[in-house]
Amino acid sequence: MSESIDVVSSQQLGGLLQMTPAQIRKDLSYFGRFGKQGRGYDVRFLLHELQEILGLDREWRACLVGVGRLGRAIINYPGFYRENFRIVAAFDGDRAQVGSTIGEFNVQSMDELSDTVIDKKISIGIVAVPAQQAQNVIDVLIENNIKGILNYAPVAAKVPMNIVVRNIDPVLSLQSMTFYLRELE
Amino acid sequence: MSESIDVVSSQQLGGLLQMTPAQIRKDLSYFGRFGKQGRGYDVRFLLHELQEILGLDREWRACLVGVGRLGRAIINYPGFYRENFRIVAAFDGDRAQVGSTIGEFNVQSMDELSDTVIDKKISIGIVAVPAQQAQNVIDVLIENNIKGILNYAPVAAKVPMNIVVRNIDPVLSLQSMTFYLRELE
Repeated sequence: MSESIDVVSSQQLGGLLQMTPAQIRKDLSYFGRFGKQGRGYDVRFLLHELQEILGLDREWRACLVGVGRLGRAIINYPGFYRENFRIVAAFDGDRAQVGSTIGEFNVQSMDELSDTVIDKKISIGIVAVPAQQAQNVIDVLIENNIKGILNYAPVAAKVPMNIVVRNIDPVLSLQSMTFYLRELE
Repeated sequence: MSESIDVVSSQQLGGLLQMTPAQIRKDLSYFGRFGKQGRGYDVRFLLHELQEILGLDREWRACLVGVGRLGRAIINYPGFYRENFRIVAAFDGDRAQVGSTIGEFNVQSMDELSDTVIDKKISIGIVAVPAQQAQNVIDVLIENNIKGILNYAPVAAKVPMNIVVRNIDPVLSLQSMTFYLRELE
């Protein structure tokens, strides 16, 4: 959203987000503090409030499990830091990797996960291990009070209801397109 | 799904997919050829039919645009090939990259995209360019009759209704978790 306007209407927001203005108003009113009938939304105020509601006004700490090619790419990806997500520890189940250095990290053994999660106030686990190890790693993270899982392994993880999982699997994404692509041919 | 059973009930499928048996039966009946009252589904037949319906019984060809660190990781990722998605060409807008070799690919200039898409029967474009170039690259792909976009750039692409886009953006995935994580704290 451009920083150069002070007020935005539900019409304008709807256009940007490809939603109806009515839906925009309804969604925002769910949180109940934005409406200024006939005037629109103060951009700076709206942005601030939304960031707070969404929990994006603070830093979130994550640990990475799996330091293979994918894990190393994740550690080196600058996008997380820019948006206040900070990887603060890296683990691997492979003893050959433990103790090696990647960027600023010493790769730790899974035995150290419990203490590290508490010490470093980690709330998100990033899973970058092979498919057949993923469920086990996710179970260990959940046992250690991790509530959010960013899962790069190509498996549908089984987790309790109160755990939030997001899957990053490009093959699954491609497979979810082909039904529509076939119809378009 | 285990290959060692011949018949599966909607009850069993529902358990595996965390859905109700009624929803399983309803969803499958939409395609109208599976029901065997009281007996369940023949696994081999169901798998074959679903693969055909979903367009997963054939090869799909993709081109990659952007051969930076991310693009190179994508080219080297074995998961696509295993599931019948084949990257058959790589492009980059940066003249310094054009002509270089990555694996089996000669990196091509964007000028060659039109002809290559036709010659190699490409239907999917994988976008691995920086955010500020992504919309332009996506527009070029669509102009050249690409109907499916796998977008790794952290932007919400604007595309016509008949284009299928899937976004692979880990930061967006993390940002969509924090609202729930905050509530759990």
